[in-house]
Amino acid sequence: MSPDGFTRIAVIGAGSWGTTFAKVLADSGQGDAPATAVRIWGRRAAVVEDITVAHRNDAYLPGVALPTALTASTDLPGVLHGADLVVLAVPAQSLRAQLPRIRELLAPGAVVVSLMKGLELGTNARMSEVIATGLGLPPERVVVVSGPNLAMEIARESPTASVVACVDETVAGRVAAACSPPYFRPYTNTDVVGVEFGGIVKNVIALAVGICEGRQMGDNAKASVITRGLAETTRLALALGGRVETMAGLAGLGDLVATCSSSLSRNHTAGRLLATGLSVEQVIATMRQTAEGVKSARPVYDLGRSLGVRMPITENVVAVLDGTISVDELAPRLLGRDLKSEGEQ
Amino acid sequence: MSPDGFTRIAVIGAGSWGTTFAKVLADSGQGDAPATAVRIWGRRAAVVEDITVAHRNDAYLPGVALPTALTASTDLPGVLHGADLVVLAVPAQSLRAQLPRIRELLAPGAVVVSLMKGLELGTNARMSEVIATGLGLPPERVVVVSGPNLAMEIARESPTASVVACVDETVAGRVAAACSPPYFRPYTNTDVVGVEFGGIVKNVIALAVGICEGRQMGDNAKASVITRGLAETTRLALALGGRVETMAGLAGLGDLVATCSSSLSRNHTAGRLLATGLSVEQVIATMRQTAEGVKSARPVYDLGRSLGVRMPITENVVAVLDGTISVDELAPRLLGRDLKSEGEQ
Repeated sequence: MSPDGFTRIAVIGAGSWGTTFAKVLADSGQGDAPATAVRIWGRRAAVVEDITVAHRNDAYLPGVALPTALTASTDLPGVLHGADLVVLAVPAQSLRAQLPRIRELLAPGAVVVSLMKGLELGTNARMSEVIATGLGLPPERVVVVSGPNLAMEIARESPTASVVACVDETVAGRVAAACSPPYFRPYTNTDVVGVEFGGIVKNVIALAVGICEGRQMGDNAKASVITRGLAETTRLALALGGRVETMAGLAGLGDLVATCSSSLSRNHTAGRLLATGLSVEQVIATMRQTAEGVKSARPVYDLGRSLGVRMPITENVVAVLDGTISVDELAPRLLGRDLKSEGEQ
Repeated sequence: MSPDGFTRIAVIGAGSWGTTFAKVLADSGQGDAPATAVRIWGRRAAVVEDITVAHRNDAYLPGVALPTALTASTDLPGVLHGADLVVLAVPAQSLRAQLPRIRELLAPGAVVVSLMKGLELGTNARMSEVIATGLGLPPERVVVVSGPNLAMEIARESPTASVVACVDETVAGRVAAACSPPYFRPYTNTDVVGVEFGGIVKNVIALAVGICEGRQMGDNAKASVITRGLAETTRLALALGGRVETMAGLAGLGDLVATCSSSLSRNHTAGRLLATGLSVEQVIATMRQTAEGVKSARPVYDLGRSLGVRMPITENVVAVLDGTISVDELAPRLLGRDLKSEGEQ
């Protein structure tokens, strides 16, 4: 470890992405340096025991061998004790409630990483904003990791690139250095707003693409929805202070394309299920894990409207989720209707 | 037809895209207006007869019913006679040789549309430039159509959006109005350079993505290659006078995503075949139709280098095609190697 490295790492949340990122962190110490000790906090005793004893997390990452430097526990104080890097990977809407307890236990000077994508219902706050206010941290201590990062592929060590974002480039660089095993390539960025909105809105666009796929509209239509979806995501991010380069990069375009291409994506799957005629409630009941886009669509749309940003795909996804229009009515609305210049959207 | 409409349309080339676009044009007259007469010129008597008599083109579009307003002939003078809209859909590298004959037969005032994607070997000229010089036309009379347009999907009337580009917006609008059946949605654009380079470089990037798929690198890696591929395409287009909005639109991002998603794409298929260890010559021998990216990769790379534009994905695809590196060596090069800020590429 370099003097700037982290000595003790805690990951809060033992789901698929939390466990996978813990593996990424633990594997980074390989090669010249010794393996980094990484401890996961999990709510469920069975999962925690599986990780520590069998070096597996069969509930979320079936068939994946986890590094021995990775242990897990249900004891939050023990996991957080002395941790100078704390990674948060809990469900987006339950984050706020967990922060007071973490704040009490957080080591002085610790850097906190968010793996979560979504807007807090009610406040429309981004996850890094919820963390900064809830833990009383300056933005320089809060980092966001996002990109084309389907967890199961990374867990299988398929080569992956990602973005590590912090307003302080040095802190982003320290975190990037801590998550650099051979199969995971982090790029740093200081545009936290753009990186987070890329990850939030893509879940909504993935619902639309999933519906297109379920209705067998073809790859031309899906590519158009991805293109127009990135355009409206970019308009929203720019209105909020994000940068166009970020949206054209791995956390914008890259994450959107990976999510919309993969049958592993929960939001994509939710869209396909909606296309079969299931109601939102039926889709939620069918799926094991949360499809965040179902929750984020309305707050994203409201935020865009409050800023005067046109978001036609998000608007129509909200209409489908609300039951105002059917999936059949959605299709023609996704490609636009009038002959016009490409710039006017 | 409006006073600005075209009265007689000729399509030169009876391959899959030429025939499909002829169907798009013929179907545009439906509804209030009568069907527009569209005539295709084809080289092969059997294909031409199939189109005119059976209203099919089973050689290129198996199973697709063509409109009765569509006829075909091997008689070039007859097809071009009086045509005020002429669509060119011949192999990119054979275009130049066919233009002198077309020039003799071209009706005064005719607008010419290019459906072709590629750089002319030797001159590095875009197809619209080859057409303008070869036919002695001002740029205002040459139009480019490009976008996420897998021909077979359009032939099956799957909903599709596209870009119609001309330096003269009015001419682009006239052509867009002539290709607007319910399943095909054209947007106009005046950035001909950007629209053409989107269509040229995506074939090279699709080769890289096809190789990733053949090596089972996963959706994360493919999304990263698409993202970094669009970034280098955009850098090249900007250096040549194109606009960043075009590259983020249907003819840039949209076309790239459709090509890289679809098993129908020839370049994508060629990449998958290269990944199995076949040589370039073996891949060409295996495939029925040309994979344009195999021919364009070197001219695109040379053009970028002459302008000082970094194009690492194109460079590495060229190295694979030249046999300088193996497909196994390609993989790590596609995601970059050093920890760095996302903007530095």
